[in-house]
Amino acid sequence: MKKIFVVGLGPGELSQTTGRALDALRESQVIAGYTVYVDLIKDQFADKELISTAMKKEADRCNLAVDQAVLGKTVSMVCSGDAGVYGMAGLMYEILHARDLEQDIEIEVIPGITAACSGAAVLGAPLIHDFTVISLSDLLTPWELIEKRLECAAVGDFAICLYNPSSVKRHDYLQKACDILLKHRAAENVAGYVQNIGREGEVGVVMDLKTLRDTKVDMFTTVFIGNSQTKNFHGKMVTPRGYREVQEKVDE
Amino acid sequence: MKKIFVVGLGPGELSQTTGRALDALRESQVIAGYTVYVDLIKDQFADKELISTAMKKEADRCNLAVDQAVLGKTVSMVCSGDAGVYGMAGLMYEILHARDLEQDIEIEVIPGITAACSGAAVLGAPLIHDFTVISLSDLLTPWELIEKRLECAAVGDFAICLYNPSSVKRHDYLQKACDILLKHRAAENVAGYVQNIGREGEVGVVMDLKTLRDTKVDMFTTVFIGNSQTKNFHGKMVTPRGYREVQEKVDE
Ligand SMILES: C[S@@+](CC[C@H](N)C(=O)[O-])C[C@H]1O[C@@H](n2cnc3c(N)ncnc32)[C@H](O)[C@@H]1O
Ligand SMILES: C[S@@+](CC[C@H](N)C(=O)[O-])C[C@H]1O[C@@H](n2cnc3c(N)ncnc32)[C@H](O)[C@@H]1O
Repeated sequence: MKKIFVVGLGPGELSQTTGRALDALRESQVIAGYTVYVDLIKDQFADKELISTAMKKEADRCNLAVDQAVLGKTVSMVCSGDAGVYGMAGLMYEILHARDLEQDIEIEVIPGITAACSGAAVLGAPLIHDFTVISLSDLLTPWELIEKRLECAAVGDFAICLYNPSSVKRHDYLQKACDILLKHRAAENVAGYVQNIGREGEVGVVMDLKTLRDTKVDMFTTVFIGNSQTKNFHGKMVTPRGYREVQEKVDE
Repeated sequence: MKKIFVVGLGPGELSQTTGRALDALRESQVIAGYTVYVDLIKDQFADKELISTAMKKEADRCNLAVDQAVLGKTVSMVCSGDAGVYGMAGLMYEILHARDLEQDIEIEVIPGITAACSGAAVLGAPLIHDFTVISLSDLLTPWELIEKRLECAAVGDFAICLYNPSSVKRHDYLQKACDILLKHRAAENVAGYVQNIGREGEVGVVMDLKTLRDTKVDMFTTVFIGNSQTKNFHGKMVTPRGYREVQEKVDE
């Protein structure tokens, strides 16, 4: 059967990539992906055919990769972070389905470290307990639904991780999101962000929700809001594994 | 400064571990962890001092690791999956704080592939869009709060990933959880589970929410419930990147 790997590279340098992901790239004749990620690996995989396309052309990129697989070549489609979290794995399945090629081409998704996990590690341990991951991009999701999800996450006292917190057109979305959270959470709720995780210029900052509301971040940033129990220990964001009253009972 | 690495090994075999995680183990004099994970790596790291303790003794394990670091040894505390998702990173920070050793010992969290991402890759792409991660263990969390979070996740139309779906004492918790979700979601909502991700005996099954309700799973299983848009494409669980009406507008 013909084969496409959809490979998560992790947040940046290849030391953050798994052996299994690197093996898939070695096994492939063709490597496809967004220009920035293909550039990241092209020196180490100089013998491969490379297909790189600009940011927005995701469906085109998938179709080009499928065309190569149809010709019998093994193809890796690379993504940053995890292939299955706002990554290319879903679109690849959708396109294979739309082109009625599911019987001919097998997709193998190779997971990578997603920004929620790599960013959390920089800040401490914000996502130790139940959490939600929400994208603030309203390109494909109605803003009303994003608001509703923020509301649900706030009410459920989840730790929250925000992807795509900003873009040129959406410079005030993080502020709007924080305003929704602040209806249910204290101004002092611990929060933070990490910019350029695992790349040059990595910066992690821990603050409170009120301060986050008035902070400008860019699109290479992942944002973290703790649950009501999250602590700021000397600049590290640490969510306990449970709730104190219960924990004390267990420790007795 | 003295150093403790808290290292996520990924779901199983070391091919699922990042280079950075393996480097941390190589740099360490002492490797500590739950017996099963220490066994996994002990052949490759036979020159290290190994500290392994049983499942429940997590605080003891952290304290032993801290004791070694105090002596000036570099210590790696290993966890399955990601160190920051129901892992040891949080407890390690808490214990360092309680022992007032934050000025002497630096903790570096090294992320790994968490079961949400590795399990999602087995099933297809269930977590492509906004999702929540919830543990069904009520050891440290009141069951009422778990119910509330399930309710919030259902109402927000999140894709949902459940950790700790079962144990000897909690054999009907998955059923209870599905009953809560079924108040807000269709019986046909796509769902699935993966047992032994990345290990011998890996099994992934895609079904619907009604069927999941009547399925027995064990503690080595991670459960996935799609959002209302999630599809079952020939046994693969695929969540679209957005909502159709909006998507069509973008594609025009
Ligand atoms: C389209 S999503 C891709 C997510 C990716 N598949 C993953 O699993 O990390 C892009 C968003 O992910 C987050 N992100 C991805 N890589 C990042 C990095 N190295 N540093 C900071 N944020 C990152 C940012 O929030 C960014 O806006
Ligand atoms: C205490 S949590 C540890 C999670 C781990 N730190 C991670 O990030 O994957 C244990 C739960 O994680 C899930 N899990 C961890 N590893 C798994 C695997 N290899 N296969 C299936 N489920 C797994 C199961 O739901 C299990 O009950």
